[in-house]
Amino acid sequence: ESLLFQHVRTETKLVILDHTTSNTALNYPIEKLAKASKRINSNIKVLVDGAHSMLAKDLDFKALEECGVDYFVSNGHKWASTPKGFGFLWVKANLTDSIHPPLISHGHGSGYLSEFSWQGCADYSVPLSIPFLLDFWSAFGTSKVRMYQSTLLNQAMDLLEAEWHHHDADVMRIAPRRFHGPMGLVRLPEALQRGSDFVNVIQNRLHFEHRIEAPIKLCNDQLYVRISSHIYNTIEDYQHLSLAIKRLSDT
Amino acid sequence: ESLLFQHVRTETKLVILDHTTSNTALNYPIEKLAKASKRINSNIKVLVDGAHSMLAKDLDFKALEECGVDYFVSNGHKWASTPKGFGFLWVKANLTDSIHPPLISHGHGSGYLSEFSWQGCADYSVPLSIPFLLDFWSAFGTSKVRMYQSTLLNQAMDLLEAEWHHHDADVMRIAPRRFHGPMGLVRLPEALQRGSDFVNVIQNRLHFEHRIEAPIKLCNDQLYVRISSHIYNTIEDYQHLSLAIKRLSDT
Repeated sequence: ESLLFQHVRTETKLVILDHTTSNTALNYPIEKLAKASKRINSNIKVLVDGAHSMLAKDLDFKALEECGVDYFVSNGHKWASTPKGFGFLWVKANLTDSIHPPLISHGHGSGYLSEFSWQGCADYSVPLSIPFLLDFWSAFGTSKVRMYQSTLLNQAMDLLEAEWHHHDADVMRIAPRRFHGPMGLVRLPEALQRGSDFVNVIQNRLHFEHRIEAPIKLCNDQLYVRISSHIYNTIEDYQHLSLAIKRLSDT
Repeated sequence: ESLLFQHVRTETKLVILDHTTSNTALNYPIEKLAKASKRINSNIKVLVDGAHSMLAKDLDFKALEECGVDYFVSNGHKWASTPKGFGFLWVKANLTDSIHPPLISHGHGSGYLSEFSWQGCADYSVPLSIPFLLDFWSAFGTSKVRMYQSTLLNQAMDLLEAEWHHHDADVMRIAPRRFHGPMGLVRLPEALQRGSDFVNVIQNRLHFEHRIEAPIKLCNDQLYVRISSHIYNTIEDYQHLSLAIKRLSDT
């Protein structure tokens, strides 16, 4: 919140908040930050970038609106397992008339829903698949999904931290565990702390040599791997990652 | 060309030409019209909307550029049978730096190709399928494809005009046949000339009752059906259309 007050002033027009940060996988208290923004000036508009939110978070737009959120954008392919190319935009009811798509197409000038309903000759098969996908997640139960994810993430982080670091001081967590959702950062072993030039080297070797897709992140001058846990992951995946990273450390 | 001179003046910045009109299925002499535009003022930019061009036309961008075409846009799903959502933009080499996508995304500020290469989280499977599709059309031979299409279109227009109109004067062609590519307009029988309110009625009944997808067009106060001929069409499709329209005429 103090960081927010450093950057947001009464003249500020728009505050953009990450719901979850991409590089550091941290959840932000957007309700609190939206409220704080409106306290600085009630005319400030608040947009939440919820790229990692769909499925990973409960989204109560009425509650978010009451906290001062005016716009919310998300995509579906990260956690909700939609096909690529699906996203959504939520806009506070009294602001819809001021929002227009960047592409002028069918329905131009006919209001919010018409203007966004069909742009160009876009393929509609992806959005048409979404109701079936939502039924799928409802049948699974989103709270069970999240419980599985967070339990597995904690186990995976415990495993990797224990395998890669002999001393607690070497773990260097970027934040307490409770700030992570289904993603977390684990510091790479000392032998792989070779600076920013090695971000892509390690990431590509994980991908091509070990068939592991996990981004390497530079954070406070240290290299971390960002791990994710979804319902199709098991602890074996992280054991595989642990070994792969150890092998890369030896070369 | 005289129509062009009525609308294009020396102060004109941009001339947008249809390669093929959607409502009337007529091919325009874009080379001639582009040249004429440049003669009015060489600074006028010419954009060709080639929505119906991919596969239906030979596209020689060097030749088009020499005629004064600066930009060319097309999509692939109409004739080239690409999945929906595929389109392309061609820009004259020395103008690429002035062209930016309406969506600011990855690659912003890194030049023409980078800015257009990946917008948002778009699904790349469609463009990745295009090389295979081009191989498919090459194997078929595009000139053979077009020969089949134009032969069939002529047969279909002959058939429908003969079935629906007893007198040549009732045919009321909107243009000589040579102006049509693989699409043409055939005037509906007298009994269905019920004005603009019936455009959607007839089109929907063709679709829902007869499983025929063919748009009805109002042209010079007369109703026409726009028929298309592709390699998956046979003369039986138009016999089916002929009967369907006759049945609608009786109700």
